[in-house]
Amino acid sequence: MTVFFVGAGIGGVDYLTVKGARIISQAEVIIYDALVDTQILDLASAHCIKICVGKRGGKISTSQESINDLLVTYAQKYHQVIRLKSGDCGIFGRINEELKVLQAINTEIEFIPGVSSALAAPLLANIMLTEKNDSQCVTIVTGHDCDSLNWSILSQVDTLVILMAGKNLSIIVEKLQLYGRSPNFPIAIIKNGGSSQQQIWKGRLDNIVEKTLNISLSPCIIVIGKVVENEQ
Amino acid sequence: MTVFFVGAGIGGVDYLTVKGARIISQAEVIIYDALVDTQILDLASAHCIKICVGKRGGKISTSQESINDLLVTYAQKYHQVIRLKSGDCGIFGRINEELKVLQAINTEIEFIPGVSSALAAPLLANIMLTEKNDSQCVTIVTGHDCDSLNWSILSQVDTLVILMAGKNLSIIVEKLQLYGRSPNFPIAIIKNGGSSQQQIWKGRLDNIVEKTLNISLSPCIIVIGKVVENEQ
Repeated sequence: MTVFFVGAGIGGVDYLTVKGARIISQAEVIIYDALVDTQILDLASAHCIKICVGKRGGKISTSQESINDLLVTYAQKYHQVIRLKSGDCGIFGRINEELKVLQAINTEIEFIPGVSSALAAPLLANIMLTEKNDSQCVTIVTGHDCDSLNWSILSQVDTLVILMAGKNLSIIVEKLQLYGRSPNFPIAIIKNGGSSQQQIWKGRLDNIVEKTLNISLSPCIIVIGKVVENEQ
Repeated sequence: MTVFFVGAGIGGVDYLTVKGARIISQAEVIIYDALVDTQILDLASAHCIKICVGKRGGKISTSQESINDLLVTYAQKYHQVIRLKSGDCGIFGRINEELKVLQAINTEIEFIPGVSSALAAPLLANIMLTEKNDSQCVTIVTGHDCDSLNWSILSQVDTLVILMAGKNLSIIVEKLQLYGRSPNFPIAIIKNGGSSQQQIWKGRLDNIVEKTLNISLSPCIIVIGKVVENEQ
């Protein structure tokens, strides 16, 4: 028995990897998250068992314990089980608990990297995260629990990419200014990156909340850095 | 005329995107870097013109000016030209100059994201860059010019991924300790990530240089952080 942790990439099948597509087409079981595009699930055979365990901000979802149980049950019963995550499973995929329960029953595990939305959404929005003069480094973080983050560091990195942060935008811009970022520092919000529904808002730390007032921003990627201004 | 900036991903065709593979198979011209796997170039048609402009640490390579000239020449003559970079072209792909010369002649440009070696090499080496307890953020940087980097910040981020750093390993471990990292802080070096030649060395800031003495480390990815110890 093998469980493949597959990164679905961003958007539909186009940005899935060749190996990801092949493994999905051969799978007996796919346990997938809410943000995975249905086009990708359509690659699976008609006999494949597909189970949505979507975690999505605010909505009811399968508990982590239930996901672990599902994985163990199917891993014991089938040879080719896929745990399909949006983006790349190694970047805030929160898969450690799942790996532990599978290792406990001696499941073989294989990782198939995916295009991470943290890097791909900005590229597809014509924002280059690294640039000789303006950005020597890029830092990726999740914004779903802002209080636990080290803002004194995050406010100093050249380019900051924040995932899962739509709901906390006002806290983020406040924290960054509190820790020394100028109110006119550039920020961009990319919603539905990599899909035909892609939307982009650009502004400064002191006006982006106003610019996106009453707009539901999730799922989005936030980019903070001078590179936002240097769009190609 | 369109120039596609395509990320070749890591290793061979397996971790190339579905769209990347399709565009490569249709290309008239491919201008590619040294680190791109030949398996990927084999996807191109027999009529496709393939030009290596490989930049590779220490070896003679095509100058940036010559690459720019080549791109302009072929973009003006052909409909489907690919600029193929290893990993993801948005992450230290140094493509800004190329974009500028192409925009100056009104070339249509399309980006096709790739799996970045910065994220995929650690995942394929069973190192999870983000973890609930040990790593709330990951920072990506290149190590080819260590003197220009802000080590006071880099020494404080939870997980640091350094690309193109094989030659500067001793400077890197020295800088990190100088700016406060403990000598026993964990570090891993992944050479040829994503390929069958993958090699991994693990150690601490104070012994990794000795552990890899006289070994040619390039091309490699360096990971510095507690996550190196928590290997799955």
